Amino acid sequence: MSEVESFFKSAFSVDNVIFGFDGGDLKILLIQRGAAPYKGKWALPGDLVYPNEDLDTAAERVLEQLTGLRDVYLEQVRAFGAVDRHPLGRVITIAYFSLIKISDYTVTPASFAQSAMWHSVNKVGDLAFDHKEILDSCLKRLKRKVRMAPIGFELLPPKFTLTELQQLYESILAPPKGIDKRNFRKKILSTNLLNDLNQVQEGVSHRPAKLYEFDKDKYEQLVAEGYSFDI
Amino acid sequence: MSEVESFFKSAFSVDNVIFGFDGGDLKILLIQRGAAPYKGKWALPGDLVYPNEDLDTAAERVLEQLTGLRDVYLEQVRAFGAVDRHPLGRVITIAYFSLIKISDYTVTPASFAQSAMWHSVNKVGDLAFDHKEILDSCLKRLKRKVRMAPIGFELLPPKFTLTELQQLYESILAPPKGIDKRNFRKKILSTNLLNDLNQVQEGVSHRPAKLYEFDKDKYEQLVAEGYSFDI
Repeated sequence: MSEVESFFKSAFSVDNVIFGFDGGDLKILLIQRGAAPYKGKWALPGDLVYPNEDLDTAAERVLEQLTGLRDVYLEQVRAFGAVDRHPLGRVITIAYFSLIKISDYTVTPASFAQSAMWHSVNKVGDLAFDHKEILDSCLKRLKRKVRMAPIGFELLPPKFTLTELQQLYESILAPPKGIDKRNFRKKILSTNLLNDLNQVQEGVSHRPAKLYEFDKDKYEQLVAEGYSFDI
Repeated sequence: MSEVESFFKSAFSVDNVIFGFDGGDLKILLIQRGAAPYKGKWALPGDLVYPNEDLDTAAERVLEQLTGLRDVYLEQVRAFGAVDRHPLGRVITIAYFSLIKISDYTVTPASFAQSAMWHSVNKVGDLAFDHKEILDSCLKRLKRKVRMAPIGFELLPPKFTLTELQQLYESILAPPKGIDKRNFRKKILSTNLLNDLNQVQEGVSHRPAKLYEFDKDKYEQLVAEGYSFDI
């Protein structure tokens, strides 16, 4: 065997931290493993990458097989490749996170989707492999990114109230003292990226709040002009 | 061959964008390839990862073999894994960038180090493999990171003037209109992370400027108290 051939004995996988928001908690979608290794443990959805498949394509495939969703927010975070991270051999995994609207999610017919369940991020315990470390790394990236880019809206329904938006940021950033309501509203409205829909909530027991939508076209136009989102 | 075995036919490498600063330009260290593929082309220093080697360890090894330097700033950026990116087979590469003081660099005896040369980042043309894409990605990360963390000091000598510091930021961020001197000095001094050494430059033809050092201990203490660097 040539020297170079001895290096071609590894595999690589993608693992996907799929975030959702249910109005109260930030959640992630986990799979209960049906087979060894780590049988019965909760794990991130992921798969080995096919020899002729690009990394992003593999991550999109895992997401679609599990959730039926395509064209959702997906971002590569980094590679995890500790020597002993996988019992089957040398397997490097490339971690992704995606943001979906929880209401768009329905259980797909894929066999591994049957064992999927949403878990509150702050109640996740041990996970299979090094998946807890991967989750922590993706969560850290999300916390930073959500302040620098308006990606949080990917987790909300198309029409939302300012209270819902604030709850979303609180669930992600988890600041010890919460977020000051007045400052938050002032800051987010001053971006001019929210359209007031001139509608209010329906079917709520409290005083119905105004509904807004995120103006993605306007954001993209502003970015082209050099604008940076910062909240 | 079992289904799983068919996946264990890939290799992975690390590639390292080594940044340096010569007082004027932001530079990177490139290697001229001595053998096919891409013989004669400039490339990022990198290597295949050994079967029993962690990713960070491999990146540190490449850096040390080339520069003789250890314990320098090193950060993983992301994985690049397009199906056809390497002519020898499926090879995923994990991109790193590191920051070194150019004056600490001397050519090491390693054979591939003989062909190494510093290039101005903004004059780099085509590179071997997908290395130009990797460079662009690492440069983008450096531009963002240098504003969020005081890592720029890794590129400067231990004692520096405020003008040198500003030139460093200008060479990395390359703002179209430059950086306003008065604002920059006010902002950087207000961090209280620079110690005035009560010394001035020696051997310069112009009026010698005051010398400063970065107070890393103080920075780490502030971070522990919740401080975020932002310049």
